[in-house]
Amino acid sequence: MADTPYDDQNIFAKILRGEIPSHRVYEDDHVIAIMDVMPQGVGHALVVPRQPSRNLLDADPAVLASVISATQKVARAAMRAFDADGVTITQFNEAPAGQSVFHLHFHVIPRFAGVPLKPHTGKMEDSDVLAVNAARLRAAIDST
Amino acid sequence: MADTPYDDQNIFAKILRGEIPSHRVYEDDHVIAIMDVMPQGVGHALVVPRQPSRNLLDADPAVLASVISATQKVARAAMRAFDADGVTITQFNEAPAGQSVFHLHFHVIPRFAGVPLKPHTGKMEDSDVLAVNAARLRAAIDST
Repeated sequence: MADTPYDDQNIFAKILRGEIPSHRVYEDDHVIAIMDVMPQGVGHALVVPRQPSRNLLDADPAVLASVISATQKVARAAMRAFDADGVTITQFNEAPAGQSVFHLHFHVIPRFAGVPLKPHTGKMEDSDVLAVNAARLRAAIDST
Repeated sequence: MADTPYDDQNIFAKILRGEIPSHRVYEDDHVIAIMDVMPQGVGHALVVPRQPSRNLLDADPAVLASVISATQKVARAAMRAFDADGVTITQFNEAPAGQSVFHLHFHVIPRFAGVPLKPHTGKMEDSDVLAVNAARLRAAIDST
């Protein structure tokens, strides 16, 4: 809840510290963007600020401008990288809203006509698939 | 799609021009926040920038900072106004992603343990219910 302290043992904190690997597609001074390892669709990426906060509710407002700017950048690139028909952005605050990792992140999910979002079932995507999609998305971001 | 021009006859443009009514809970120089008339849950609100864009893909990056700041403000207030257990933020780009009004907007949906989101079925909420929820949310925003 809102007064729960940030726990720096969450998976995104570990990724930010380089303690565990990720498929990174973008980074700047304020954020990283990585592939979601349990994607709800092809090319599902996450934008994660470097500054710790549990979620949107306790985030530093100054951080949010960087996060939403990077989210736009990734969304635009995803449209081209995956020849997508749309992009769904989601951001969950607290477990009853669907949050499972308690470090602020925005989901950027390419959408395709007639293809529903897959549920967040916990099924890990094959690392080779993630690597290919990361390369496509990274190339589109780098070409902007 | 990305190169489709903005159409100023969409419902949010009409609300911004005061041509049709809304349950307004917040406004500043850059955004308004209103109740969603087809809520996916109690207290479902929308943050809408005054500056026209179809969605996140063609938005002016400078506008996004104002929009996400207001989204945070409404989300924090919604937790208190509705004694919510969480908040889901969604933002849809193009019809295959779920977008139905083509003026950028962020959904702020209070969440309650064990209560799933209602589908966006097109069922209009009773105006009196919206007015009561708007008053609760406005009071919480004004008290921050």
